[in-house]
Amino acid sequence: MVKDYTLNEITIQVIQYLKDAKRTEFNRLLDELHPYDIARIYELLPIKHRNRFLSFLNIAQLASMLQELDNEQQQNVLNHLGIEKAVKVMDKMDNDDLVTLLEELLPESKEKFLANMKKEESQVVQDLMNYSPETAGRLMTNRYVWIPQHYTVKDVMNKLREYAEIAESINYLYVINDKKQLIGVISYRDLILSEPKEQVETIMYERVISVTVNTDQERAAQIIQRYDFLALPVVNHDNVLVGILTVDDMIDVLIQEASEDIEKLSASGKDIDFDTKAPIAAYRRLPWLILLLFIGLVSGTIVSTFEETLQKVVALAFFMPMIAGMTGNTGTQSLAVVVRGLTSRDINKKVVMKLIFRELLVGIIIGLTCGILISIIAYIWQGNPLLGLVIGSTLVITLIIGTLAGTIIPLILHQFKVDPAVASGPLITTLNDVLSLLIYFGIASIFISHLM
Amino acid sequence: MVKDYTLNEITIQVIQYLKDAKRTEFNRLLDELHPYDIARIYELLPIKHRNRFLSFLNIAQLASMLQELDNEQQQNVLNHLGIEKAVKVMDKMDNDDLVTLLEELLPESKEKFLANMKKEESQVVQDLMNYSPETAGRLMTNRYVWIPQHYTVKDVMNKLREYAEIAESINYLYVINDKKQLIGVISYRDLILSEPKEQVETIMYERVISVTVNTDQERAAQIIQRYDFLALPVVNHDNVLVGILTVDDMIDVLIQEASEDIEKLSASGKDIDFDTKAPIAAYRRLPWLILLLFIGLVSGTIVSTFEETLQKVVALAFFMPMIAGMTGNTGTQSLAVVVRGLTSRDINKKVVMKLIFRELLVGIIIGLTCGILISIIAYIWQGNPLLGLVIGSTLVITLIIGTLAGTIIPLILHQFKVDPAVASGPLITTLNDVLSLLIYFGIASIFISHLM
Repeated sequence: MVKDYTLNEITIQVIQYLKDAKRTEFNRLLDELHPYDIARIYELLPIKHRNRFLSFLNIAQLASMLQELDNEQQQNVLNHLGIEKAVKVMDKMDNDDLVTLLEELLPESKEKFLANMKKEESQVVQDLMNYSPETAGRLMTNRYVWIPQHYTVKDVMNKLREYAEIAESINYLYVINDKKQLIGVISYRDLILSEPKEQVETIMYERVISVTVNTDQERAAQIIQRYDFLALPVVNHDNVLVGILTVDDMIDVLIQEASEDIEKLSASGKDIDFDTKAPIAAYRRLPWLILLLFIGLVSGTIVSTFEETLQKVVALAFFMPMIAGMTGNTGTQSLAVVVRGLTSRDINKKVVMKLIFRELLVGIIIGLTCGILISIIAYIWQGNPLLGLVIGSTLVITLIIGTLAGTIIPLILHQFKVDPAVASGPLITTLNDVLSLLIYFGIASIFISHLM
Repeated sequence: MVKDYTLNEITIQVIQYLKDAKRTEFNRLLDELHPYDIARIYELLPIKHRNRFLSFLNIAQLASMLQELDNEQQQNVLNHLGIEKAVKVMDKMDNDDLVTLLEELLPESKEKFLANMKKEESQVVQDLMNYSPETAGRLMTNRYVWIPQHYTVKDVMNKLREYAEIAESINYLYVINDKKQLIGVISYRDLILSEPKEQVETIMYERVISVTVNTDQERAAQIIQRYDFLALPVVNHDNVLVGILTVDDMIDVLIQEASEDIEKLSASGKDIDFDTKAPIAAYRRLPWLILLLFIGLVSGTIVSTFEETLQKVVALAFFMPMIAGMTGNTGTQSLAVVVRGLTSRDINKKVVMKLIFRELLVGIIIGLTCGILISIIAYIWQGNPLLGLVIGSTLVITLIIGTLAGTIIPLILHQFKVDPAVASGPLITTLNDVLSLLIYFGIASIFISHLM
C-alpha cells in the first residue's frame, strides 16, 4: 500500500500513527522503508513528534537511520536517546560509519560513549581511528565473510547462511590461509555454479587485487571504479586480511574528491554546502580572498611602475581588463584539464611531457587566433595600427604563458606532493594577471614613442 | 604464481608466450587476470604482437576486454578481428557497453555490424539506442534475473543457478506479476535466510525504488548513491520491468557529471583529456575564449567612457586589476558552492531562498572585511584618505554583488533548465569584471573633484 506514496505523504501517515500511538501500524509501515527514507522522514517531522518517533524505532532501525543523517542531526538523536540507548545503537552501527560519527563529537562525549560500548566493539572502533584519515584502514568495515582455504563449496554455503545477516557484502568471499593471510577470492556467482564437494582452493582466483590499510582512499576508490568491483579487500603489512571497502563508501570518496577538485578550481574553501552558516562560510573563504587581495595589489604596483606610460597613452588602460581576464581564463581552462586528469589516470614522465607539449601547442593556436582578432578590433576601435599590434602581440604571448602556467604549476605541485589546493583557479588567475600586465606594459613601453 | 607480478612483468611474460606460440600457458595466465588488466596489457603490447594476442583470446575474453578499452582502441581491435569475429564478440558484450561502442562508429560500419549480429541481440541494441542519451533507458542492461510472483524460495534458487552466468547483478531479484510489472524486490541476503518452501510474495519488499526509462542518468546515479544500492530497476510507463542499472555504470555517470561541473567552472570545453589532440582541444576551448574576449572589450569600453576621470587620477588604474579580480573570485567561490550543491541535493524554493540569504550575508561579511582592509592599504600607499574610501566602498559593494551574481545566475539557469554550462566560472568572472568597473568608476566620478 505504501509503495506509491511520496515521502511527504508517508510522513503525514507517520505523524498520524505517532499521534494515535499506533505502534504496530507504525512498525509495519517503517519496515517497508529504506534507512535513507527513514532519515528523511525524521528530518521532515515537526520537533514535537521526534521524541516519540525515536522511541518507536528499534535499535537496528535507529542504527541504520543514524548512518543516513548529517552530523548535526546525529548529535541531536544521540542526545534524545540518552547514553544507555545511544551506546546500544552504536554497537549495531557499521564500524566505519561509527568512526565518522565519533570523530565529530567533543573528546569528552567520545570517551564517554567508547567507555560504555561493548568492549570488543569499542576496541575495533579505536583501532580504526588509529589509521590516518583518508586511508583504506579508516574506511574499511569488518562485516565481511572470510573462508579458510580447506573449505568445500558446501562448507562455504553453510558459513554464508550463518553470517549473511551481519555481512555488508557477500559478493566476494575472501579465502585465507592459517596465518589469516589473503590468498584468494571467489565470487558468489562462481560459488553457486560449482559442485558442493569442490574445494575452495581449486576454484578461487589467486590474483587477488587488494589494498593495504595505508592506501590512500582515492587510490582505493579508483581501483573499485576501474575494475567494477563491489568490494575490495584490505590487508595489513603481513598480507593478513583485516577488512573490506565497499563500493557505496567508495562512491562517497569519489564524490568527495570531485568536490575537492572543484574547491581547488574555485578556492571556495573546504566543506561549504547549502547548510553551512554564513559566518562559517565567510570565515572559510576569507583567507584565500585576503591572499588574493594582496596578490592583486602586486598587479597594482606593476601598473603604478608604468604610470608614465599609462599617462601618455590612457587607451592602454582600456585593454587591461581584457588582457588580464583572457590570460586568467586560459590558465583556468588548462588547470581544469590537469586537475581532472590527475584524478583519473596514473602519471609518468612521458604523459607529463606529452601534456605540456600539447598545451603549448594549444596556447599557440589560441594565442594566435585571439591575438590576430584583437589586433584588428583594437586598430578599428582606436584607429592606431601600432596599438593594435602591441595588444595583439601581448595577447599571443600572455595566452601561451597563461596556458603553460595553468598546466605546469599544478603538475609541479603534484610532483612535490604539495597540497594541490594551493594551485587553485583564482591563484593561477591572479598570478596570470600579474604576468600579463608585466608583459603588456613591457611591450607598450618599448613602443611608447610611436604609440603617442 | 602470477599473483604478485606487476602488469609490466606480466606483459613481458605474455610477449614471451606469444613469441613461443605457447597458447596453453598463455590462456592459463590470462584466466587469472581481470578484463581491466587484459585491456592494459593489450595497450602495453608492441603493435607487432597484437594480432597474435587477439587471435589467442577467446570470444568471451575479447568481449570483456573490449569493454575496458577506449573508443580508438576498440575500433582498432574490431578492424583486426574482421567483421565475422567482431560480430561474435559483440553478441557477447553487455548491451549497454555495446551501445556506447556502436554509437562512436561511422553510420555505415554501425549498420554493417548490426546487420550481421544475432537478430534478438541487434534488436535489443537498437531499442536501447532509441532512448535519449543520458537517460536510464540508454544505460540499462538486460542481464538481470526476474522472478514471477508465485515462485517459492526454492524455485528462485534453481532459476538463479541457471542464470547466474549471464546475470550482471544477482544482489537483488526483482519480482514481477503476470503482466511483467515490477511489484517487489528481494535481496539475495534475505533469500538465503529464508525457508526453501516460503513464497516469494511473502518475503519481498513492496516499496521498490525504481526509475523509468526516461529518468535522467544523473538522477538515477543519485538514487544509487543515496540508498547505497548495487543496482536499480528500470521500468517503462506501464511499470513493466525492462532493465537494470548497475552501480559500476552509475559511478561512471557520477564521475562524468563531476567532470561536467568542472568544465562549467573553467569553461574548459567538453571532453578534453590528456589524449585529446592539440588542434581539437584548441578548437573546443576557442568559442568560449572569443566570447569572453568580446565581453572583456565591454570592460574596456567602460574604462574608455571614464577616460577623463582616469586621466585626472591615474592612480585609479592601479586598483583596477585588484577590484575586478576580487569580484571575479568571490563570484567563482559562490558559483562552486551552488554548482556542487545542485548535483547533490534536491532544490525547492525554501532551500533557494535560504541559500541566497546566506550568500548575501557572506558577501556582506567578506565585503566589509576586504573593504576596510583595502581602504587602509590604499590610504597608506597613496597617502589619500578619500582614494582609500572610494576603493574600500567599491570593494564592499562589488564583493556583495559578485557573491550574489555567482549564486543567483546559476540558480536562474537551473530553474529555466538552460544548459548550466552557460554559467561558467570565466563567464561570471568576466561579467563581474564589467560590473565592478562600472561601480568603481561610478563612485570615483562622484568624488573626482575631491580626489585630485
